Amino acid sequence: MKTIVVDTLNNENGSQNAIKAAYKWAFENPNYTLILFGNNNDLKQLNINLPHNIIFKHSPSVVTKTSNIRDVLKQPSSMLDAVEFTKQNDVDALLSSGDSGSLVTITTLKLKRLQGISRPAFMPLIPKQSGKQFLLLDVGANTETKTEYLIQWSKIATIFYKSLLNEQTPKLALLNIGTEEYKGPTIQQEAHQILKNSNNLFKYSGFIEPNNILKDDIDIVISDGYAGNILLKSMEGAYSTLFTLLKNAFMSSFITKIAALLLKKQLKIIKNKFDYKKIGAATIIGFDKIVAKAHGRSNEDAFYSALNQLKQIIEARTINKMQKYLAEIEDNNE
Amino acid sequence: MKTIVVDTLNNENGSQNAIKAAYKWAFENPNYTLILFGNNNDLKQLNINLPHNIIFKHSPSVVTKTSNIRDVLKQPSSMLDAVEFTKQNDVDALLSSGDSGSLVTITTLKLKRLQGISRPAFMPLIPKQSGKQFLLLDVGANTETKTEYLIQWSKIATIFYKSLLNEQTPKLALLNIGTEEYKGPTIQQEAHQILKNSNNLFKYSGFIEPNNILKDDIDIVISDGYAGNILLKSMEGAYSTLFTLLKNAFMSSFITKIAALLLKKQLKIIKNKFDYKKIGAATIIGFDKIVAKAHGRSNEDAFYSALNQLKQIIEARTINKMQKYLAEIEDNNE
Repeated sequence: MKTIVVDTLNNENGSQNAIKAAYKWAFENPNYTLILFGNNNDLKQLNINLPHNIIFKHSPSVVTKTSNIRDVLKQPSSMLDAVEFTKQNDVDALLSSGDSGSLVTITTLKLKRLQGISRPAFMPLIPKQSGKQFLLLDVGANTETKTEYLIQWSKIATIFYKSLLNEQTPKLALLNIGTEEYKGPTIQQEAHQILKNSNNLFKYSGFIEPNNILKDDIDIVISDGYAGNILLKSMEGAYSTLFTLLKNAFMSSFITKIAALLLKKQLKIIKNKFDYKKIGAATIIGFDKIVAKAHGRSNEDAFYSALNQLKQIIEARTINKMQKYLAEIEDNNE
Repeated sequence: MKTIVVDTLNNENGSQNAIKAAYKWAFENPNYTLILFGNNNDLKQLNINLPHNIIFKHSPSVVTKTSNIRDVLKQPSSMLDAVEFTKQNDVDALLSSGDSGSLVTITTLKLKRLQGISRPAFMPLIPKQSGKQFLLLDVGANTETKTEYLIQWSKIATIFYKSLLNEQTPKLALLNIGTEEYKGPTIQQEAHQILKNSNNLFKYSGFIEPNNILKDDIDIVISDGYAGNILLKSMEGAYSTLFTLLKNAFMSSFITKIAALLLKKQLKIIKNKFDYKKIGAATIIGFDKIVAKAHGRSNEDAFYSALNQLKQIIEARTINKMQKYLAEIEDNNE
């Protein structure tokens, strides 16, 4: 029996989407137990009989962001209860759609790290121009990153990628502001030298620049947390501004309105394609349990997909593989 | 008499665009002398008689990039000659469309810095959603940035902005991965505390995130060179991918082709609007002379506009104002 803990609150569209998704998913996956944290009243309003493999725990407080991020550890919340339960029990994975910063803080301070991993990393799947996806990490769990973190993340992200996407030897690159060897800050240069001489767990392709990241055939991009976050938010800003300007242009005359109508379907496909937040759940990698962060406005389908994604990661025995690999490195270094 | 030095080579479209623009501009601005560095053969082919206020210096070698960036100082090039001439003579400004990295390296190692400025910064004008522009610095002249650089750049960029865009008290913000006070790396946090308590040279608006940078009403955004470069290239990548996908969508059927035809004009306006490289010349700020970098594929119009931009900066006595302001700070600190 596998166990997934779900924080149903802290979603911008209320908690019932998570409950309904869990309800549907639990019936289809009787060999899993789902532990839901949320408000009993939300559950009652749905007027459903939970299957025996869902346990609902009443925890009615949402996370409130304050000026001190560590306050999330002091105030009661379903997120905090869900993480605490994950820590104390034999749980395989945790899913929440709550605030990323709060989830990173609580899990980092509560959950046990994988042996040999100094810091967890926030790792979304990013859609590429080709329609494929790549893993980008770290995008903000860390504001100051050391060289050794980049190397550690390269290894566990590779094992994760193999589990999720069945790729034998993924292509890995290091984010930088140039592809020449002399380019970039010290930690990128140091990590580059180490990765160049690394084993054949992945194919290391060297530095990659942000302007090529959506075009190149790369599976995993490693970055310090600050630059990774800047990258993600810069692309988000560029897309948003471009879509606003297109919308304004389309509304500018009768003719353009007709043209826009003819293109509506195609435009919607493109728009959805690049909303990376809708592409599955992001992972906070580095713990001895799987932690997934669904989009803050996740609907029932998004939660349902996230549960399937977690199932795949669990059944590929991803955490075991990471532990085994990290222990082997440890042995070789002794 | 004012003097502007122009490196006519190192442009992807050949040197004749720069020569033709200089020719036109020199006639209209008889109180300026233009010193052109380039290949005599290119000039001869144009078959024009240069006015008396253009001096052409034969320097036929282009910059070649090698694995060691400092090689640009050893190999002869029109860029190197142009910078050397600027250093040795009473020159007001230097214009080149050559490789940014080479231009930053040569000017940094050759030209005199303004008193009190530790490092030069690369500073393009970026188009916003509203159609206005903002100055972004540094976007890559520095890979490792100290807190004090951010403060110094805030001051000289403000004086530059006032000269170029006639704004009395520009709004300045600091790039970061969150707007909360506790967010971001140490240098951003330290700079934030100093800028909060700074004088009224600019209106300091606090942290700004890359996803809001094109929407907010900010005139100057200060960043470390690494994150600034990541931001610029991320936006470039997002625009490029989105335009490619739009193009593919427009070509997908007879109907969409018709629609695209109806929208052609509007789409072109949007596309040009966000090609920041076409929006005037970027400045390398921090020297006692003005250094401008035009786009690598500049045409005649782009060079002509760049010369007008330099004229405005020169006639606003921008360098003098920076020197005066920096000397005043120095006096107050004694």
